[in-house]
Amino acid sequence: MPRSLVAADWGTTNFRLFLFDDSGQVIARQTANIGLKNLGVLTFEQALHSVLKDDFSGLEQLPFLLAGMVGSRQGWIEAPYVACPAGLDTIADGIVSAPSERLNVSIVPGLFAETPGTGLLNVMRGEETQILGIMQSDSADGFMVLPGTHSKWALIRDGRIQSFSTHMTGEMFQVLRAHSILGLLMAHDAADETAFLKGVERGMYNRAFLSVIFSVRTEALFNNIPPQQLSAYLSGLLIGAEVIAELERHGHCPVRLVGDGALVNLYEKALSYAGFKDVTRIDGSAAAEAGLWALHQQRSCA
Amino acid sequence: MPRSLVAADWGTTNFRLFLFDDSGQVIARQTANIGLKNLGVLTFEQALHSVLKDDFSGLEQLPFLLAGMVGSRQGWIEAPYVACPAGLDTIADGIVSAPSERLNVSIVPGLFAETPGTGLLNVMRGEETQILGIMQSDSADGFMVLPGTHSKWALIRDGRIQSFSTHMTGEMFQVLRAHSILGLLMAHDAADETAFLKGVERGMYNRAFLSVIFSVRTEALFNNIPPQQLSAYLSGLLIGAEVIAELERHGHCPVRLVGDGALVNLYEKALSYAGFKDVTRIDGSAAAEAGLWALHQQRSCA
Repeated sequence: MPRSLVAADWGTTNFRLFLFDDSGQVIARQTANIGLKNLGVLTFEQALHSVLKDDFSGLEQLPFLLAGMVGSRQGWIEAPYVACPAGLDTIADGIVSAPSERLNVSIVPGLFAETPGTGLLNVMRGEETQILGIMQSDSADGFMVLPGTHSKWALIRDGRIQSFSTHMTGEMFQVLRAHSILGLLMAHDAADETAFLKGVERGMYNRAFLSVIFSVRTEALFNNIPPQQLSAYLSGLLIGAEVIAELERHGHCPVRLVGDGALVNLYEKALSYAGFKDVTRIDGSAAAEAGLWALHQQRSCA
Repeated sequence: MPRSLVAADWGTTNFRLFLFDDSGQVIARQTANIGLKNLGVLTFEQALHSVLKDDFSGLEQLPFLLAGMVGSRQGWIEAPYVACPAGLDTIADGIVSAPSERLNVSIVPGLFAETPGTGLLNVMRGEETQILGIMQSDSADGFMVLPGTHSKWALIRDGRIQSFSTHMTGEMFQVLRAHSILGLLMAHDAADETAFLKGVERGMYNRAFLSVIFSVRTEALFNNIPPQQLSAYLSGLLIGAEVIAELERHGHCPVRLVGDGALVNLYEKALSYAGFKDVTRIDGSAAAEAGLWALHQQRSCA
């Protein structure tokens, strides 16, 4: 089968490499520990060469297309943010070439948007490619929700990414767990659904964020929540706060929930608790593959 | 002048020791680096003995009265929380004796309260003594606000502490500054009023806390706020979120703002921005002294 494209989702932590045939099927996949924070002394080009082995050997003549933080100011080369509303066309137009001695490397730009009515700016890198991938088969109006360190809620209307917002939910959980007084009383974390949903409820209905999180401490002091359930309670508080903010802005839109594993399970529970009826789970890696291929096609046709 | 009481505000970080004459005047003061987190291998009794020198030598026969985290479960002995509404009488009733071979040591209890309408529990230790101290000369209705690592907003009505809430504003600033992506772009922090007030405004009018804080990053990425002003902007976001939560619950009550230095200046600016007209600054150390003396008197009379 003719090989036509090597593409990667290259972020701060993760690196996923894909080899496409000329019909757009992925015929090989590989991951590697060369996220931006793990590059060490390697240049981006050296790091990329280091993973071109096995199924990926002898492909130096193919085009390479990279998405994610590799296109940030701290990446290989900056691919400037494209403004929302955005679609496959404007994002493909923003693709830039990366300097390379031996490879033909292109980098997908990120997106920026102003959260409507707030003056707040938002940025994403990598998620735009996943969203485009999903939109190739489903461009209905609604939310695309990508939970994570910095969760993204993108609003799709008329086949375009109209705007999006960012919630620092994952990072907030990590810093409070590891570095604040709230982590001190936690022990032997268990995935307790009752504690999680109690957190979701309080996070949704008590909007004084800096105050409501202190209840992690007081619920422990008064033995209302045992130590092993406190982290589930905290994650509920945070995800509840995230969900209510978007619900208030945009109502119960259909939601496509992108990703997999335990985190997406939690978001499913929280969205259900919050009354979202139309929630569809979508595999994050398949979304990235479809987006990279769509951008490559769009660029080749243009 | 006859000496009548040795008293201390003994917290996690700070330790302030006071010597009272029999009219309630403080005739000597001392600080020491024996906050709970700095005790090392010393017992509480050993630590207290270590500071009984100079003006405080030869006082072992006097009563000792201690307030603050020294009365917590991790303290000398636990003085169980007293329920709100609370006043000088019920707090004095909650004073407990600490085990000591050579000293007559009593410890002031903390307070607990349920934030009205939320089911959220709150606790304080040490602040109740400052509040009681202020109420000796001014028990008008309104807020007593004690900014800090865990800010307290106590609601005074009919001469009693009716309820209070906690905001983890100071700790949130520290963990985000030191351990999150938001701190990465900060440099050479300056106390910039414009950036601070921009933060206050956005913290008040954008209630999606986990989302609005991400603007620290995007304002930097788009060069809207220079690196040295980002920490002022973040502190504005946090204090704005704290102020709006209390304003929504209780309106523009009169505020007594307890403490000193740069932090209280920031709260004054934020309260003014939020439309609070009746704001009085009160010295935190003087409040602690007055509260300790009032508790001693109440207990001696009972």
